[in-house]
Amino acid sequence: MYSFTNDYSEGAHPRILEALVQTNNQQTAGYGTDQYCKAASDKLKELIDKQDVDVHFIPGGTHTNLILISSALKAHQAVMAVDSGHIFVHETGAIEATGHKVLTRPHNNGKLSLEMIESMMAEHTDEHMVQPKMVYISQTTEFGTVYTLQEIKEISAYCKEHDLFFFIDGARLGSALVVEGAPSLKEMAMYSDAFYIGGTKMGALFGECLVLVNDELKKDFRYHIKQKGAMFAKGRLLGVQFLTLFNDDLYFEIGKYENNVAKILRDGLVNAGYSFYVDSPSNQLFPILPNQLIKKLESEFSFNIMDKIDENHTVIRLVTSFATPASKAHQFVELL
Amino acid sequence: MYSFTNDYSEGAHPRILEALVQTNNQQTAGYGTDQYCKAASDKLKELIDKQDVDVHFIPGGTHTNLILISSALKAHQAVMAVDSGHIFVHETGAIEATGHKVLTRPHNNGKLSLEMIESMMAEHTDEHMVQPKMVYISQTTEFGTVYTLQEIKEISAYCKEHDLFFFIDGARLGSALVVEGAPSLKEMAMYSDAFYIGGTKMGALFGECLVLVNDELKKDFRYHIKQKGAMFAKGRLLGVQFLTLFNDDLYFEIGKYENNVAKILRDGLVNAGYSFYVDSPSNQLFPILPNQLIKKLESEFSFNIMDKIDENHTVIRLVTSFATPASKAHQFVELL
Amino acid sequence: MYSFTNDYSEGAHPRILEALVQTNNQQTAGYGTDQYCKAASDKLKELIDKQDVDVHFIPGGTHTNLILISSALKAHQAVMAVDSGHIFVHETGAIEATGHKVLTRPHNNGKLSLEMIESMMAEHTDEHMVQPKMVYISQTTEFGTVYTLQEIKEISAYCKEHDLFFFIDGARLGSALVVEGAPSLKEMAMYSDAFYIGGTKMGALFGECLVLVNDELKKDFRYHIKQKGAMFAKGRLLGVQFLTLFNDDLYFEIGKYENNVAKILRDGLVNAGYSFYVDSPSNQLFPILPNQLIKKLESEFSFNIMDKIDENHTVIRLVTSFATPASKAHQFVELL
Amino acid sequence: MYSFTNDYSEGAHPRILEALVQTNNQQTAGYGTDQYCKAASDKLKELIDKQDVDVHFIPGGTHTNLILISSALKAHQAVMAVDSGHIFVHETGAIEATGHKVLTRPHNNGKLSLEMIESMMAEHTDEHMVQPKMVYISQTTEFGTVYTLQEIKEISAYCKEHDLFFFIDGARLGSALVVEGAPSLKEMAMYSDAFYIGGTKMGALFGECLVLVNDELKKDFRYHIKQKGAMFAKGRLLGVQFLTLFNDDLYFEIGKYENNVAKILRDGLVNAGYSFYVDSPSNQLFPILPNQLIKKLESEFSFNIMDKIDENHTVIRLVTSFATPASKAHQFVELL
Repeated sequence: MYSFTNDYSEGAHPRILEALVQTNNQQTAGYGTDQYCKAASDKLKELIDKQDVDVHFIPGGTHTNLILISSALKAHQAVMAVDSGHIFVHETGAIEATGHKVLTRPHNNGKLSLEMIESMMAEHTDEHMVQPKMVYISQTTEFGTVYTLQEIKEISAYCKEHDLFFFIDGARLGSALVVEGAPSLKEMAMYSDAFYIGGTKMGALFGECLVLVNDELKKDFRYHIKQKGAMFAKGRLLGVQFLTLFNDDLYFEIGKYENNVAKILRDGLVNAGYSFYVDSPSNQLFPILPNQLIKKLESEFSFNIMDKIDENHTVIRLVTSFATPASKAHQFVELL
Repeated sequence: MYSFTNDYSEGAHPRILEALVQTNNQQTAGYGTDQYCKAASDKLKELIDKQDVDVHFIPGGTHTNLILISSALKAHQAVMAVDSGHIFVHETGAIEATGHKVLTRPHNNGKLSLEMIESMMAEHTDEHMVQPKMVYISQTTEFGTVYTLQEIKEISAYCKEHDLFFFIDGARLGSALVVEGAPSLKEMAMYSDAFYIGGTKMGALFGECLVLVNDELKKDFRYHIKQKGAMFAKGRLLGVQFLTLFNDDLYFEIGKYENNVAKILRDGLVNAGYSFYVDSPSNQLFPILPNQLIKKLESEFSFNIMDKIDENHTVIRLVTSFATPASKAHQFVELL
Repeated sequence: MYSFTNDYSEGAHPRILEALVQTNNQQTAGYGTDQYCKAASDKLKELIDKQDVDVHFIPGGTHTNLILISSALKAHQAVMAVDSGHIFVHETGAIEATGHKVLTRPHNNGKLSLEMIESMMAEHTDEHMVQPKMVYISQTTEFGTVYTLQEIKEISAYCKEHDLFFFIDGARLGSALVVEGAPSLKEMAMYSDAFYIGGTKMGALFGECLVLVNDELKKDFRYHIKQKGAMFAKGRLLGVQFLTLFNDDLYFEIGKYENNVAKILRDGLVNAGYSFYVDSPSNQLFPILPNQLIKKLESEFSFNIMDKIDENHTVIRLVTSFATPASKAHQFVELL
Repeated sequence: MYSFTNDYSEGAHPRILEALVQTNNQQTAGYGTDQYCKAASDKLKELIDKQDVDVHFIPGGTHTNLILISSALKAHQAVMAVDSGHIFVHETGAIEATGHKVLTRPHNNGKLSLEMIESMMAEHTDEHMVQPKMVYISQTTEFGTVYTLQEIKEISAYCKEHDLFFFIDGARLGSALVVEGAPSLKEMAMYSDAFYIGGTKMGALFGECLVLVNDELKKDFRYHIKQKGAMFAKGRLLGVQFLTLFNDDLYFEIGKYENNVAKILRDGLVNAGYSFYVDSPSNQLFPILPNQLIKKLESEFSFNIMDKIDENHTVIRLVTSFATPASKAHQFVELL
């Protein structure tokens, strides 16, 4: 039984594991003040060709979202997202638990459009309602779709004009960065106020690299990391992992690999005549399959069952990771 | 330069690292529902000879404290601690950030006494004040001291009588468990409502093992873990580490090792005629040293400077870890 | 210029004001422990023919909602409502500020249906999402509609079956109680876990009377009132007002009066050939009027402009209060 | 039985009640946007000779404290106070419930000294601890003592220098303003960042008038008032009351009256040879009396029993209000 259930079924990319083993016996300063976190941060600044950002390493994605959002908003302010947004659906009310409402509009292929933002802004006009202050999107989206550079630029311009923070959740950023038309890492830093470079779902054991671009978000940020329980004593674990990911383009290599293996699946599905719930160029696929075929596939593979389309058809989700062998994708295609 | 600054300067115990390497390529279920978390939980239940506890693995100590405390208390309830307690001083208001007051009394060698608890209970009598509902202590304390079984029993009895939860922070529990007169792991589960077995400061890369004894604390606990950002996608990392720590008594072995190396330091200090701010049997020592000697020691060792005692004397803190070579302790003693 | 903008434009009903004047010089105990609060509570228990409820008096409606909801829910739990619900739209995120998500479905004439509740329950299945634990409705709704006894009974039965709290916001309860087919005060206490009897919008200077029916909600409730700043030092002001409202059926009398004056407006609108956005039997009306007529009406009356229907038509809101003279309603009708 | 228990045993000053009666039938805008709130705000600006302040009216004192403090602080920031401070002891953790720690030092006659502030600042140095950002005092203090202009100036200067907000709780400000050496209303606005002028304990039915001096505190403040449930629908009730208090020096008159009646009690106690736990010039007295005398006094008067001093002596608290007849004070003195 092979699993296409998600991109966090395995441990870490071999190079990351090796780096952890090699540095294991060293003594370093605690809480992310070590040389590895410094080096990873420096390397990232080089990659985005921008020195005036603050870089923080946080153990997980929900944790990163709740810390960034709660530290940026005042008590009466809210964040805008799509109704399929991770913060709205799948974080057990983590944002609300810090006191903030998540405003939503129904998603369009997982994406938030300018019209949706405008509509939420138009609705919230006075002190009897929360004040929208941040736009949250994720790249790739929950449906594996990817915002184009043009879309990112437009949202960015709107946010600047309306004094909104623009925050991009990059749990699967590596898979997006290598898609044609998507903003580059450098452009992420040019057009957002904050974004994070996901590690957990991109070959690290765990960890997300949060980049604070807007000066307003930087002050005292380590207090928020500590208060929410995210300041690892052995913070160098995060530094070592991200330094490895940033060196020799490993991060991009993993993204490409995941997408390539996903492409084997996608091509196979298309060739077999199946369509998709949402068409995605990244490492998550949402094919619509006959229930009987699903049953057959389940004898050799595991994956998530999503929505029922009709009596006989269902959407499933297939996810590839840094560790998915191409052979398994081929094997899956053969079963179709 | 060798560091006695803390017990989280190095990576993981070799056996833990090896287990992580060996299981790295396996596919497992996410979010702590994998076979390693299950096996570690089963092994612990065997160690404490008690099946009706719930075991959860959480990445860090502050995180564990804030999740347990906020999930246990209702909005108007407070937790009682000493003024040197980790939750009161060194968690950036993490508990208050979840809405709860930490009531305190000045500590006695790092410990909370029954009299202190009684005094806080006597002071809080009606709805104009918060309602004390939990007792929080840590074993070992912030000063390296260790509660005796008798002390634990007394607090436990008081808590049962007054309908209070008794929660023990065991960030350094391994170092306490092997001290004579201290409660055993089994007794921790007999006399507390919840406690955690620290990994981060006891040889793991990271992670704490929270044991919920009181049924009232168990319901829906995974919701709280997720909401506070502590549900690791690759949860098996915690399972693998704690399974290794629980197997073959590794956890106890590490505790003994730390204390033994600390004893080399303590004996050396005593023999050299120095006294201690607080006398501790565990892996943290608080000697009072002449400032000139401190300067000399700092040329070869790093450690924390604590309080000034008088013009010429200062308290320092020395901490040993699973990785501290005995030779380094001897070398330190020679410098005295 | 006469205002139909809302039902809190004037001060208090003359009998309430008189009671406040007459008791002004008396010395009473503070914080709601006085004889008037006791008498008002006793009178209410008599009216609902039920002794085992707890009665609390709280200064305002948003305040009552946030105290009741935050005291009833655990950190991971959410409340279900319609998207037009007061707690979702018009309380500046008050519920989220206490840490809880408000789940919604699009309303049906302001009402929440059993199907909507079932759909939210079906969607929230595990610890990656919040746990629905309470149903919130308001009687009358934001659109002036009134739940029938049958509807209330059905929701109540569903809640009992699924271990959900059923909470009814009665800011305008007086206007609903006198509508045919609506549950009586006694039935409110039979079928809800908690509800409140609005004062502010029903002729009091201010104040809501919260009735806790379910024992689980009663414990330590005064702590929550105090913590959220709602425990009035001169709590007897609330007792005196509600005692007056409960005596001699004044509360019902006010409800009838408001509805009767609203009926003058409704009949006039119907006779003049206008339709309604939502058909309401209570003290709020939502007629759809030609923009030119609205302009004309605005020369003599003020009221809220709601949604635009088409190029030439707009929904307005008309509200009557205990103090609205019937003559003003007739005068309005004449202008149509 | 006459009560010296507190200054909120009676209703409102006759002039306030009269103003409420006279304006009762008027229709006004809701939520504090009416002409009376405007007029009261304008009158206050005239009294303090300062136009660039924002004035808000809030129903109660705990409510005012929690709204101001939570709106001013970021998640990681704390407020400094004395351990007898109202926010630390008697608000059921209201401040912590909004997420913020209250740092304290033992009080000196109810007062916070510069040394205490410095000591708290010195202790909180990095992101492992909360960040002190506000100084909270109350004028008069919980022990009836009054800060001198000099003391207020010194704290103010320290706060400006260290970028701290200086907030003064004036629940009983009227009683302080008329004490010699105390800062005037104008000086309150010169030296604090925010302060409130108490109504509830100074002859109003209810209500506090919050003055925001520092521009940083002003933005979006009405959102916070609404979110915390403090935006009264019939907000004009607060405007009418404070306009009356500010007109013709009524507020100062009430302060003088309370203090004068308290002086009858104080002189009588001194003449009878009794001493005080804390010597207070305002409307709260804390005499140390023989237990037998207390028993005798309790046959005709009620008051609060505070601390036991020794076997035979106890501290009691006597409070005068706008409504305390001088004759009752004389009668009490005769009993001594």
